[in-house]
Amino acid sequence: MVKPQESKESLQESLQQVIRLLNKHKLVEGLVHKQDMPKHDLVESLVHKQNLAELHKKLDALHPADVAYILEALPLEQRLDVWDMVKAERDGEILLEVSDAVRQTLIADMDSEELLAAAEQLDTDELADLAPDLPKDVLQDLLDSLDSRNRERLQSALAYPEDAVGALMDFDIITIREDVSLEVALRYLRRLASLPDHTDKLFVVDRDDILRGVLPLKRLVVNDPDLIVSAIMTNETVVFHPEDKADEAAKAFERYDLVTAPVVDENNRLVGRLTVDTVMDFIREEAESDILSMAGLREEEDLFASVWKSVQNRWAWLAINLVTAFIASRVIGLFEGSIEKIVALAALMPIVAGIGGNSGNQTITMIVRGLALGQAASYSMKSLLLKELGVSLLNGVVWGGVLGLAAYFLYHNIALGVVMTAAMTLNLLLSAIMGVLIPLMMTKFGRDPAVGSSVLITAVTDSGGFFIFLGLATVFLI
Amino acid sequence: MVKPQESKESLQESLQQVIRLLNKHKLVEGLVHKQDMPKHDLVESLVHKQNLAELHKKLDALHPADVAYILEALPLEQRLDVWDMVKAERDGEILLEVSDAVRQTLIADMDSEELLAAAEQLDTDELADLAPDLPKDVLQDLLDSLDSRNRERLQSALAYPEDAVGALMDFDIITIREDVSLEVALRYLRRLASLPDHTDKLFVVDRDDILRGVLPLKRLVVNDPDLIVSAIMTNETVVFHPEDKADEAAKAFERYDLVTAPVVDENNRLVGRLTVDTVMDFIREEAESDILSMAGLREEEDLFASVWKSVQNRWAWLAINLVTAFIASRVIGLFEGSIEKIVALAALMPIVAGIGGNSGNQTITMIVRGLALGQAASYSMKSLLLKELGVSLLNGVVWGGVLGLAAYFLYHNIALGVVMTAAMTLNLLLSAIMGVLIPLMMTKFGRDPAVGSSVLITAVTDSGGFFIFLGLATVFLI
Repeated sequence: MVKPQESKESLQESLQQVIRLLNKHKLVEGLVHKQDMPKHDLVESLVHKQNLAELHKKLDALHPADVAYILEALPLEQRLDVWDMVKAERDGEILLEVSDAVRQTLIADMDSEELLAAAEQLDTDELADLAPDLPKDVLQDLLDSLDSRNRERLQSALAYPEDAVGALMDFDIITIREDVSLEVALRYLRRLASLPDHTDKLFVVDRDDILRGVLPLKRLVVNDPDLIVSAIMTNETVVFHPEDKADEAAKAFERYDLVTAPVVDENNRLVGRLTVDTVMDFIREEAESDILSMAGLREEEDLFASVWKSVQNRWAWLAINLVTAFIASRVIGLFEGSIEKIVALAALMPIVAGIGGNSGNQTITMIVRGLALGQAASYSMKSLLLKELGVSLLNGVVWGGVLGLAAYFLYHNIALGVVMTAAMTLNLLLSAIMGVLIPLMMTKFGRDPAVGSSVLITAVTDSGGFFIFLGLATVFLI
Repeated sequence: MVKPQESKESLQESLQQVIRLLNKHKLVEGLVHKQDMPKHDLVESLVHKQNLAELHKKLDALHPADVAYILEALPLEQRLDVWDMVKAERDGEILLEVSDAVRQTLIADMDSEELLAAAEQLDTDELADLAPDLPKDVLQDLLDSLDSRNRERLQSALAYPEDAVGALMDFDIITIREDVSLEVALRYLRRLASLPDHTDKLFVVDRDDILRGVLPLKRLVVNDPDLIVSAIMTNETVVFHPEDKADEAAKAFERYDLVTAPVVDENNRLVGRLTVDTVMDFIREEAESDILSMAGLREEEDLFASVWKSVQNRWAWLAINLVTAFIASRVIGLFEGSIEKIVALAALMPIVAGIGGNSGNQTITMIVRGLALGQAASYSMKSLLLKELGVSLLNGVVWGGVLGLAAYFLYHNIALGVVMTAAMTLNLLLSAIMGVLIPLMMTKFGRDPAVGSSVLITAVTDSGGFFIFLGLATVFLI
């Protein structure tokens, strides 16, 4: 029995062990290269073989998800060494487990034959996950090698966008008729010898594959075998369509605590099923991509990606920030005359801009979350705006007051202190207004408010903060 | 059958409908108040009653999760109106579904008796979720009302920290003996009439509740009923301990695609089980709290919280940012003499600081993620640092070069352009070093690197950026 603490430790231990064996292996290889003395050859090649055998054994004993973990944790060169040692028949399932970024490095290392062999071990729904990363010619060979039913399934799965239910569903469905007894259903199941993973219910369909209901295994085992399926099945089940949004499906899985759910076409014909493990992976990936995009990374990045790959992943956001920073700089440029007269303005202005940005990001995060949950509908926007303005006013008076006092004590200038307090309050109010309006506008124009909102609000509060503070100073102090 | 698209629409529709009925209800109430003409009374009270009846009917027909959704989407006053209309016997299950922040507003509206009545409808594991939000005296009354077994369970669940498996597990376990036939097991199940939610396996224990293995329902239904449980059960299952970290358990659920898993004590005695729906809720909450803390919010906030509550949730991070902004401002203060001589420095310096912050946040996000997955162990830190330095150098030369040129064209000063390029490159290198070191140090001192890393790196790149740029300018330009 695997205990998770042991399993967590043993995962780290496995990683360390693989690295140790790999280093030994490299060391011996190096020695063999350097020394050409024939009498050493035998000994070293023995040690070499022993190390390799141990490494192979270790890797063969690991769960595919664990091999994937180790591949992710290794720098490119060692990663490919380990990849070459993995048994070819396990390539497919491991490729499914690694992240997109790491998968690309592994696929780049394989020739068409190896890829085709790996792909042929997978189910159609698994192939659909892998297909976008395969070279065009391998994909074509793969399609040619499938029977017509699976080819159709794969092509239709590939036709759906990545975030549609059709791209996530699998085809491991066990169907029964509604007019048979539970006894007959059980006898039918016993002939199958094993059921697909996550089977918690059987799908009840008619002759034309039209979904009539579902029969949870739980009900199958607690009810009298003489009863008829239609008496025990339920049709109170959540049903999805292939074109449904995957994130809506994920919310339904969470909301109604589902393990599997049927996917039907427009005629209510059963075409596949969605399982909780796929949904959980989807939720995790979405959460990761939110965090990455908040930090200005375009997509998941291989920790050991080359400098060049990393620069490509990051330059877009840096460039946008550069533009907004440049605009803010030009706003300051407008007031160079004022700064020349009162140089303290230069030291104080970044505080006004920075706090506005922080406060705006707090507001925007709340609103984006409310919009994503559908709870910040436009009718309540007025009350949300009023509330955020209240929060900003309070923060502006308190923290603006504190910094106004600080400015006064530093520069012995009462008017400067008052301008500081006023500018901070005004910039916080600006940040509240824009924090509510920006995500609302983005939603109205059909954009995802989670992406780019933070950059926009910071741009506004930076340029706005400089303008408000330096403008007020120019009017009242100079 | 519920179709999710319809269900999503109907969720929004339900919300709109509740709001419409609520408004009508309020309107009539207002009229009754204003007009004291007796002849109108009868008509209005009829309309009033009709509205209320419709609202009650609507609410009764909704899934508890959907009522919770509507409560979350309503401003406080309307939320409490709706809450009062929910049938008392549904209070408990709805309280479980709402977020912590909204739960507090609902509980504040209930008296001890109502709370006790709501709590008494819940299972022990559900009570454990609710208990921390209950007033002390209600919790004590509740403990007194439980039988000794459930009291013990509740107290032990409450004793575990929120992020331990012991706080998430439930007690809905069906156990069987290993020496019986599947036929006997099936007969036993039929006597139960129904199985707990998410039952995908039975737990095989001996006389002392020691876990011997698990029998998946899938295996139960496909195997010959004459076989003995011990021949069919598996002991290759992931087992947790109550004191295990919940996030490790969540990773195991994702990694090994689990639906339920047994929880055992140190003697391998079965004490509970963990289910995928609880784990999925936990993952969602963790992801939300990461996003909230990145934005500087202490915890999940009720969208319609009072201004005062929101200020409390947000002031801590604002105060920290205020301190770091003040320090950066004092760094600028050191160079006021230089700024007085070349006022262009004031306009250019925020660019250097800002881009350093962006780049640092990109680095830190990568490293924090690597550390969380256990893949950025210290042995690979050197290669990660070298890579990040490479990325920064490239970005510094390219973007620093662009801005150096811009500075030259704006101010016709070659030396200023060169200083700009050099300062940007140096600050980006600083951001790379700190982006790798800060999360590493925080991990070493046992702190969660996801919390506060972003604030720290921004503080360093702001103050550092101002110091590098103004320092270089003072040395080379003045």
